[in-house]
Amino acid sequence: MKPAVVLVSGGLDSATVLALAMQSFGCHPLTFDYGQRHAIELQAAQAVCKQLGARPPRVIRLDLRAIGGSALTADVPVPKGGPGEGIPATYVPARNTLFLSYALALAETLGAADILIGVNAVDYSGYPDCRPEFIAAFERLANLATKAGVEGTSMMIHAPLIRLTKAEIIAKGMGLGVDYSLTHSCYDPVGGLACGQCDSCVIRRKGFEAAGVPDPTRYA
Amino acid sequence: MKPAVVLVSGGLDSATVLALAMQSFGCHPLTFDYGQRHAIELQAAQAVCKQLGARPPRVIRLDLRAIGGSALTADVPVPKGGPGEGIPATYVPARNTLFLSYALALAETLGAADILIGVNAVDYSGYPDCRPEFIAAFERLANLATKAGVEGTSMMIHAPLIRLTKAEIIAKGMGLGVDYSLTHSCYDPVGGLACGQCDSCVIRRKGFEAAGVPDPTRYA
Repeated sequence: MKPAVVLVSGGLDSATVLALAMQSFGCHPLTFDYGQRHAIELQAAQAVCKQLGARPPRVIRLDLRAIGGSALTADVPVPKGGPGEGIPATYVPARNTLFLSYALALAETLGAADILIGVNAVDYSGYPDCRPEFIAAFERLANLATKAGVEGTSMMIHAPLIRLTKAEIIAKGMGLGVDYSLTHSCYDPVGGLACGQCDSCVIRRKGFEAAGVPDPTRYA
Repeated sequence: MKPAVVLVSGGLDSATVLALAMQSFGCHPLTFDYGQRHAIELQAAQAVCKQLGARPPRVIRLDLRAIGGSALTADVPVPKGGPGEGIPATYVPARNTLFLSYALALAETLGAADILIGVNAVDYSGYPDCRPEFIAAFERLANLATKAGVEGTSMMIHAPLIRLTKAEIIAKGMGLGVDYSLTHSCYDPVGGLACGQCDSCVIRRKGFEAAGVPDPTRYA
């Protein structure tokens, strides 16, 4: 199977993408230790890759705390109560641009033409870098930034969940055998348990309800 | 003056861009320790910023050796004899995409709408991520990736040298008072001195000749 780089965060969406990708690609999971408040998701990423029979994730260390500007990487409280208006404090400046840039570097080095990412623009926190137009613009960039653009091959950025509801994502993952109890979505975990109140927890819990699937999340 | 992020490598081009930028912006120089063979350029970046009266550069550490794929970051020889056909072994996969992505993250955090980069597509090594179409695609991406895209403001990526010859760049920098003896361009330095034979040295030396300016480079 042809190689692909799969961005894996340890969360529900990227676990589903990895399960999908394992059907079509030789997967190279890639995850990031970026000084995030919820670094426990790195352990979840390891567990998810193991459960799905993928290689262990390659971990890139990048210090986004040196840049700051987000409740996930600076001393700013995580908002509670579910998504509101506008872009929330948990938005991390240029995070998905950075993650995809590293994925692009790795893909080019591996000779892979495919990158998969679990962004979603339906049940999401309103981050600008989760929208379809962002993904399309990155794909265009990727083909100008690399040898692909000069040598006439092409890079593809796949975002297979981008137009699905959270319930549809969960249903798809259940069908592919994803064990969601291993995944971690909470932005503000308490002793390794989900807070149940941040945007990410609220969106996730509603997704399980709407999918009619018991929520395996361990809440504080 | 409004703030701008200026990518500074310690080389001739970015020193010229910083000198230009100091006339119009409150400059935030940004440089990268990426495991490069020619890490001595980091000292040059410090010296250039000091000489031009700018803030000391913010240094982001990123381990591109974990990705490899280039003569600058892996155990692959640096080609000698000047630019040839095709993309050379010194090309670093997605390097400028990564550098601009970090610059974008910093710009958004600082509230800056302007990023300056010293890429050049005339007297250059043939890297795909130095071409005008790459810069235009990144600017488009930047405006979709960030709050700017949602809030209706806009990010600009300035590449003021992109269509200049090396001689024109040097003439411009001399006019702005750049001390090119502080800059470092060589990909494969020997005891801190320029090798005189890699693409970067060859392009630089010819630039000084064409500009009719004594070459201040210290060669091995």
